[in-house]
Amino acid sequence: MSAPTNTNPARGMRDFLPIEVRKREYVIEIIKEVYESYGFEPLETPAVENLETLTGKYGEEGNQLIYKILKRGEKLEQSASEKDLSDLALRYDLTVPLARVVANHKNDLPRFFKRYQIQPVWRADRPARGRFREFYQCDVDAIGSSSMIVEAELCAAVSEILHKLKFKGFVIQLNHRKILSAMLNSVNVPKERHVEALITLDKFDKIGDEAVFNEAMKLNLSENFLKLAPFFRSILNKRREINQEFADRTMEHKRNVAFNKYNEDVLEIISSFIKGQEGEQGLSDIKKILEFVRINNLEGRVIISPMLARGLSYYTGAIMEINLDADSEFEDFNVSIGGGGRYDGLIGMFGKEEIPACGFSLGLERILVVMEERGMFPKELETNSADVLITVWNEESIGESLKLAGELRQQKLRVLVYPEADKLGKQFKYAAQINVPFVCILGESELAENKVTLKNMETGEQETIEREEAAARVKIHKQNSKSKS
Amino acid sequence: MSAPTNTNPARGMRDFLPIEVRKREYVIEIIKEVYESYGFEPLETPAVENLETLTGKYGEEGNQLIYKILKRGEKLEQSASEKDLSDLALRYDLTVPLARVVANHKNDLPRFFKRYQIQPVWRADRPARGRFREFYQCDVDAIGSSSMIVEAELCAAVSEILHKLKFKGFVIQLNHRKILSAMLNSVNVPKERHVEALITLDKFDKIGDEAVFNEAMKLNLSENFLKLAPFFRSILNKRREINQEFADRTMEHKRNVAFNKYNEDVLEIISSFIKGQEGEQGLSDIKKILEFVRINNLEGRVIISPMLARGLSYYTGAIMEINLDADSEFEDFNVSIGGGGRYDGLIGMFGKEEIPACGFSLGLERILVVMEERGMFPKELETNSADVLITVWNEESIGESLKLAGELRQQKLRVLVYPEADKLGKQFKYAAQINVPFVCILGESELAENKVTLKNMETGEQETIEREEAAARVKIHKQNSKSKS
Repeated sequence: MSAPTNTNPARGMRDFLPIEVRKREYVIEIIKEVYESYGFEPLETPAVENLETLTGKYGEEGNQLIYKILKRGEKLEQSASEKDLSDLALRYDLTVPLARVVANHKNDLPRFFKRYQIQPVWRADRPARGRFREFYQCDVDAIGSSSMIVEAELCAAVSEILHKLKFKGFVIQLNHRKILSAMLNSVNVPKERHVEALITLDKFDKIGDEAVFNEAMKLNLSENFLKLAPFFRSILNKRREINQEFADRTMEHKRNVAFNKYNEDVLEIISSFIKGQEGEQGLSDIKKILEFVRINNLEGRVIISPMLARGLSYYTGAIMEINLDADSEFEDFNVSIGGGGRYDGLIGMFGKEEIPACGFSLGLERILVVMEERGMFPKELETNSADVLITVWNEESIGESLKLAGELRQQKLRVLVYPEADKLGKQFKYAAQINVPFVCILGESELAENKVTLKNMETGEQETIEREEAAARVKIHKQNSKSKS
Repeated sequence: MSAPTNTNPARGMRDFLPIEVRKREYVIEIIKEVYESYGFEPLETPAVENLETLTGKYGEEGNQLIYKILKRGEKLEQSASEKDLSDLALRYDLTVPLARVVANHKNDLPRFFKRYQIQPVWRADRPARGRFREFYQCDVDAIGSSSMIVEAELCAAVSEILHKLKFKGFVIQLNHRKILSAMLNSVNVPKERHVEALITLDKFDKIGDEAVFNEAMKLNLSENFLKLAPFFRSILNKRREINQEFADRTMEHKRNVAFNKYNEDVLEIISSFIKGQEGEQGLSDIKKILEFVRINNLEGRVIISPMLARGLSYYTGAIMEINLDADSEFEDFNVSIGGGGRYDGLIGMFGKEEIPACGFSLGLERILVVMEERGMFPKELETNSADVLITVWNEESIGESLKLAGELRQQKLRVLVYPEADKLGKQFKYAAQINVPFVCILGESELAENKVTLKNMETGEQETIEREEAAARVKIHKQNSKSKS
């Protein structure tokens, strides 16, 4: 075996040490729990897909980012192209595999299939801060229904996740592809330029209205496009006003009332812009979603954003984006941590029929970064996962330490046994290094008296107690520190 | 988008539908829980490794089975070899990544690092029944200690996992590379032929002694090798006798006593065979492990198997293999579902020092297959993960159904809302199809009286009750069916 000197993970990939795994699992568990409470069931698909399953699904740019797997033992011909070299690829997202599974199981899946899927995907993207080549997606999709119940429940579920993760200021922006389309029609942007216009529009609250309209000019989009400017500007201003006026969280109720009013105003303006069946359908959908989310106490959390476009061209109905407040409570919504919408054409891609579908994808990596920055993880994730370390007095007493460990594990504690008969000082140094909350000392006198000495590593307090009391003592502490964090 | 007709997962890969995911997670959760109770912490490494990290670590055969990833946008030269085409590869096992992580973090990992890792690996193997190209490994390793505490705790942890999964008949076979080596020396098998001899020996209880010795003859192993035959044969016979005599599980205690005696006898025979420091060290280790596991009530579960060799050449000390009984309770131990041992040379492969290490790997896929065959999964994994489906009476009452769903979720129930105002019969048909335990009907009269009708889908019973009682009713049922299974 030759010893390569590079022991880093591959570029853009990450190792997760225990503390990082615990934080990831903490977030994932909450996501799963909430999705399951809304009746979504777990699905898993393989990391490796047939290349033909993925090719052509992600546009030209996406195609370039797919990791392709070298055919095994393939002889390389002079004319070898990528196609000859590879027929497998790494999963690029969770939507195409879902579409494949739905087609493959069309006779045994229920008519309405609600699934969540939390798995890594791989993209040969240029690594950057917060952008990795292996990252998790948390997708949730409801297949088979055109009802706005689906959109409303997705909004409710995602909000509940953020509540449980203890995010305070967040908002779900809501728009509709059919409204966007009707609006662009109303200002005479030709159909074939809608996609360009949408991409430009989508940057509105990121780069500001002026920059958007400069871009629109450059792209030579209809001058009428500019007619939308005052409308959007007034909406954005209204939003900022509300956020500023009710920045204090004690005013959350008033803020919600204000955003309800805002939603009504925006709906009215939209109505005045658009004509025809398409726009009406969009408006009717949006009104239903707002009606339904009101039942789940989400008023003021779901706000209409007529400039929200979301890049992906496959959306066909409602579109949603979830945004965290930037710094202070409700200042502005510019940290996007997920989005979704209705895409009735996509899930049927491997079959013959169009299947209605609506989904949402949370950006796990982004959520983790923000939670880390804001110190939102429970304190107990930072300590060792073991509750207590049992010391070893000497070679002869190892059995006693193992026995005690067995007893404490029976009491549902997580127990480490120091693995060698080192000096006690060394054992304590180790306990501090691994950040274990308690050390249980089984020394000569403790062994003689059938007692243990329990040391709280946080406070430094230690006391010698009956062996049978040890587990209860640790558990009380555990309960207390949990309720504190 | 072209529509490929093949919607199967790639060859040797699998999709896991909800019920399968739940079964996999059930097993994984128990494995994690037990490993954590022994102070092991989770580690995760990326699916994609630098090719040079993996190359040369798995022997020539292993090398061939590594999935290599095509370099992106690489121009293919006439002279292109695999090396020019790929510098990344898919994880092949969890041990090499662990060694890399240990080397990479040698200054921030604790002196004793106990980690578990449950992740998929990929091998371009020929798919067969029970053999997949993507499969999970469940590894647990303790790095940094040479103490037999480690071996003993690994045996205890793995036993506890199998107990919690409700396996009845299983045994941990124990042997030691140094004993094997001393034994082969004692019958004059030259050092350079030990590996061959071990591989042959390892088949002893699989293909029978005669076949083993025929193979030994063919390989032209020392004739003295045959001197081991009567010894091994007598051990195997003794084992079968004990298993037959105490096949009834009510006799488990007697069986354990008999196996204790067996262990003592075997140790004595081994002692008589071997001479020299190496063998003595092995014997002393084995005795310590047996002493320690006795404390954890594992006597009779850990039995010495002097013919156990385990293929991997990297083991340096104790070796272990866990075997399930074949069909009846204790008939014979021929379903291997995991194994491990001490491998003091391997973890240091990326560094300069030798680091002591001992680990165990459970075969998740094998465990799942056996549990499925034997019907060992709790019944509740077979039903939908939702507790109750709420019907929708008509378009106007959708809000009421959503409201009830919110109330029940507040009570920690998992709730599906039927997404359309279909006929009630259709909604029930769906409830039966997705196998949800309860349907909560919110019809015209229920709405008028502020009640709900709850139908138990298993028994067919239904009753109209106060809205506030619904959650409690479902929970009681859930509790009952859990304690039954």
